[in-house]
Amino acid sequence: MSETKGRYEIRLSGAGGQGLMLAGKLLAEAASVYDGKNAVQTQSYGPEARGGKSKTDVVISDGEIDYPKATKVNVLLAMSQPALDEYIGSLQPGGMLVVDSYLVEEPGRDDAIAIPFTMLALEECGRKLFANVVALGAVAELTQAVTWDSLRSAVLARVPKGTEKINDSALDVGRQAARQFLEGK
Amino acid sequence: MSETKGRYEIRLSGAGGQGLMLAGKLLAEAASVYDGKNAVQTQSYGPEARGGKSKTDVVISDGEIDYPKATKVNVLLAMSQPALDEYIGSLQPGGMLVVDSYLVEEPGRDDAIAIPFTMLALEECGRKLFANVVALGAVAELTQAVTWDSLRSAVLARVPKGTEKINDSALDVGRQAARQFLEGK
Repeated sequence: MSETKGRYEIRLSGAGGQGLMLAGKLLAEAASVYDGKNAVQTQSYGPEARGGKSKTDVVISDGEIDYPKATKVNVLLAMSQPALDEYIGSLQPGGMLVVDSYLVEEPGRDDAIAIPFTMLALEECGRKLFANVVALGAVAELTQAVTWDSLRSAVLARVPKGTEKINDSALDVGRQAARQFLEGK
Repeated sequence: MSETKGRYEIRLSGAGGQGLMLAGKLLAEAASVYDGKNAVQTQSYGPEARGGKSKTDVVISDGEIDYPKATKVNVLLAMSQPALDEYIGSLQPGGMLVVDSYLVEEPGRDDAIAIPFTMLALEECGRKLFANVVALGAVAELTQAVTWDSLRSAVLARVPKGTEKINDSALDVGRQAARQFLEGK
């Protein structure tokens, strides 16, 4: 089992086209189908979602999830500066902020976990496209919100045939980057 | 503007792999980005989502959406028998039931709107894959929850390049089938 107990809220934010909806889905499936918890993924559309910003919330719980809207965000991933600026206020005190340091110039907090996901995807996996999976690997390692085996299973079951290896490698790039960040602190 | 006022809840259900998440996303984007309303899309994972069933809820409102979980489902689309059996109880009295008559043998209600979406996709668009877009066109026509122009814009902006024409045609197949059903009543 993963280490989180009770209700745990993860907000994945960035720009449209970065694959954050898919990342949220993979996280929710890892938590539910493979870890046996309950998970709800929500995406809101409206004034707040305009201006190129995109976000999805994943709520994971051992018990039933009666209220699926994120109210106390435990972890905020920001893959763009506008998304960070918009959603930083939703992070609860003591919550974890993870930013793509390749795209977010001003994390605004000293304790932000800054990892260049998009650059890592480009350099280690050959395409920016994998930045969402790199970030997913890092978030999973940093939060332990889902078990690693479950995350891998969810990712490998979903990605297009023939891309399993590169996606698995992208996950691991994120995991290693997270470990290096934690060791360097 | 579309004809619905206040809060309107649409539940799209079926089997995994039928593209219902995407259909929900397109509906939510049509309502928000193009019709100027608010929309929230939610997918739950957990015990209820197992057994090959898949569902996504789209809540559309003129105002803010404080509670994104569907509580009074106005429209239920069921693209498989297990999904219908699981979710029919969530449809509010007087709500609209739309089923894929190619896959649902027992709609269980005399007033069900039964249209063979999957067969239409196969026969009119050449692939079952388009059943979700055919169903989306029908649901939009039946409910008027989003304007037709907005739905088309949302679909054409999202589908892979080169598939715009066939997706546009799939939408229209659904719209025409809905009209024929209403005329035949």
